[in-house]
Amino acid sequence: MKLGIVGYGNLGKGVEYAVLQNPDIELEAIFTRRDPKTLQTNSKAKVESVNSIKNWKDRLDILIICGGSATDLPIQTPQYAADFNVVDSFDTHAKIPEHFSNVDKIAKENNHVALISVGWDPGMFSLNRLYANAILPNGKDYTFWGKGVSQGHSDAIRRIKGVKDAKQYTIPVKEALEAVKSGKKPNLTTREKHTRECFVVLEEGANPKFVENAIKTMPNYFDEYDTTVHFVSEEELKKNHSGIPHGGFVFRSGTTANGNEHLIEYNLKLDSNPEFTAGVLVAYARAAYRLFKEKQFGCKTVFDIPPAYLSPKSGEELRKTML
Amino acid sequence: MKLGIVGYGNLGKGVEYAVLQNPDIELEAIFTRRDPKTLQTNSKAKVESVNSIKNWKDRLDILIICGGSATDLPIQTPQYAADFNVVDSFDTHAKIPEHFSNVDKIAKENNHVALISVGWDPGMFSLNRLYANAILPNGKDYTFWGKGVSQGHSDAIRRIKGVKDAKQYTIPVKEALEAVKSGKKPNLTTREKHTRECFVVLEEGANPKFVENAIKTMPNYFDEYDTTVHFVSEEELKKNHSGIPHGGFVFRSGTTANGNEHLIEYNLKLDSNPEFTAGVLVAYARAAYRLFKEKQFGCKTVFDIPPAYLSPKSGEELRKTML
Repeated sequence: MKLGIVGYGNLGKGVEYAVLQNPDIELEAIFTRRDPKTLQTNSKAKVESVNSIKNWKDRLDILIICGGSATDLPIQTPQYAADFNVVDSFDTHAKIPEHFSNVDKIAKENNHVALISVGWDPGMFSLNRLYANAILPNGKDYTFWGKGVSQGHSDAIRRIKGVKDAKQYTIPVKEALEAVKSGKKPNLTTREKHTRECFVVLEEGANPKFVENAIKTMPNYFDEYDTTVHFVSEEELKKNHSGIPHGGFVFRSGTTANGNEHLIEYNLKLDSNPEFTAGVLVAYARAAYRLFKEKQFGCKTVFDIPPAYLSPKSGEELRKTML
Repeated sequence: MKLGIVGYGNLGKGVEYAVLQNPDIELEAIFTRRDPKTLQTNSKAKVESVNSIKNWKDRLDILIICGGSATDLPIQTPQYAADFNVVDSFDTHAKIPEHFSNVDKIAKENNHVALISVGWDPGMFSLNRLYANAILPNGKDYTFWGKGVSQGHSDAIRRIKGVKDAKQYTIPVKEALEAVKSGKKPNLTTREKHTRECFVVLEEGANPKFVENAIKTMPNYFDEYDTTVHFVSEEELKKNHSGIPHGGFVFRSGTTANGNEHLIEYNLKLDSNPEFTAGVLVAYARAAYRLFKEKQFGCKTVFDIPPAYLSPKSGEELRKTML
């Protein structure tokens, strides 16, 4: 299976690494908006300008699009679905129906497969919500994120006047987690579920009181949370907060007709959010290629994919070793 | 969707309850080997002798077979797959390939769908092993069971001379669980992973030393484990050990190419093993019926089923609410 990557940020690099762990997949080309000559990659894949991507039509089985959800993917995924089978990690939950419909139209018109919103949330967390809801129709769902770095919240802090750099950690509240794990089915407010911890490097002469207040009162991002702000040096931020860990929990707490209680828990602890997401993308790229060979064209999500399609093993081998 | 149940033990009763939580499914008939007149059921479904099951051909969309894996299912599932779409919970892992092939042949010859080995292990645990292996190809798998009642081990104790009744709990070793959760990827022996705790009621005059020794040295069942034996009165066993709780953990601890560590955990805490298994069976019965309408005949397992097929919701609704 011949793979291409569009975009060579953290996620693109993660996909490049992930391919090395999957001997049935070969990375043929990396497409970038930058000058290809300036890119230092970690594989033998050709580095090409994104402007020449059309020349690669019919030379790639699957293209993984590693752009951002805010502005890149809404344009790139429909665009590239005309010439390629594509996989993306579109994660703006509220806009998934719109993105799905845009991509589906183009993919169907051009007999391609497009798999959107692949990753862990949306992605593996979504799958666990779906399975658990189907098994325990009478119950309550809980999703917690973290402890991990929220890119969006870190960016929001960096936009405050006087801030040179920042990292924000989302942290599940221990008491809330314990209450859910105990099967109590608590009602939890936003504030009761997560806290936010910020590590901030100030510009010279900036007022820490102003910055701290600007963070803690920021609508949507921080005002509904208990937020802690630490001011640190640039060196300290680099030394202790340069990783991109993440993770979280999906629970369903359900009751069967006899009043018996059941708890389903799925949780992830990830040293590197983009490298794990890349692992999910590559497994689903394999599935997308199988769907293409079956002529199951159009847009799909993780909900539509038979689990066996993710594995390089045959059905027989899977039943023998993993069932 | 019209459902039938074969077998009215704990699992059959669980399915009967589970149907009540799924308004799109109706339980039409319960088939029993006992005299139908002696059965006290909890629904309006007709109670029929299993000998008259042929009369129900074309009157049921799906038949859930709630027999035991040792002697019932290897015969019943192929037999009933001739006349019905069937779902079973066959759980003898080593014999799944043989069972699959027997059932597949008959299901295909008769244009039926047969879903085998549906439950939590095999079932949801298998799915989690598969997904996690596909995402993290470089890693280690761990499965722990319990704390929960092992029917097989309880039965084995009951067969010892001098034992009137018994319940056996399988318990994961806390230190082993913690080592896996820490991401250490330990190598664990059988003894290091689980302990076994037994509650035994003796026949009058039986020798407790003999019974304890017979349990602890029993090959395959107990000799490789640290086993604790408690002798209790019949009343105490009934009062404190009449439930059928179970559960367990599936982990995959994996490394990506950058040396970053990732841990995927799935765990279940179940008050009632058969009621939870029944919930899984009913959701997969819905999926089996969809496969039948698509003419995807033959034997399948949870690995072959698109997750969306388990839910009563439409693809659009699922993408909007659960992705």
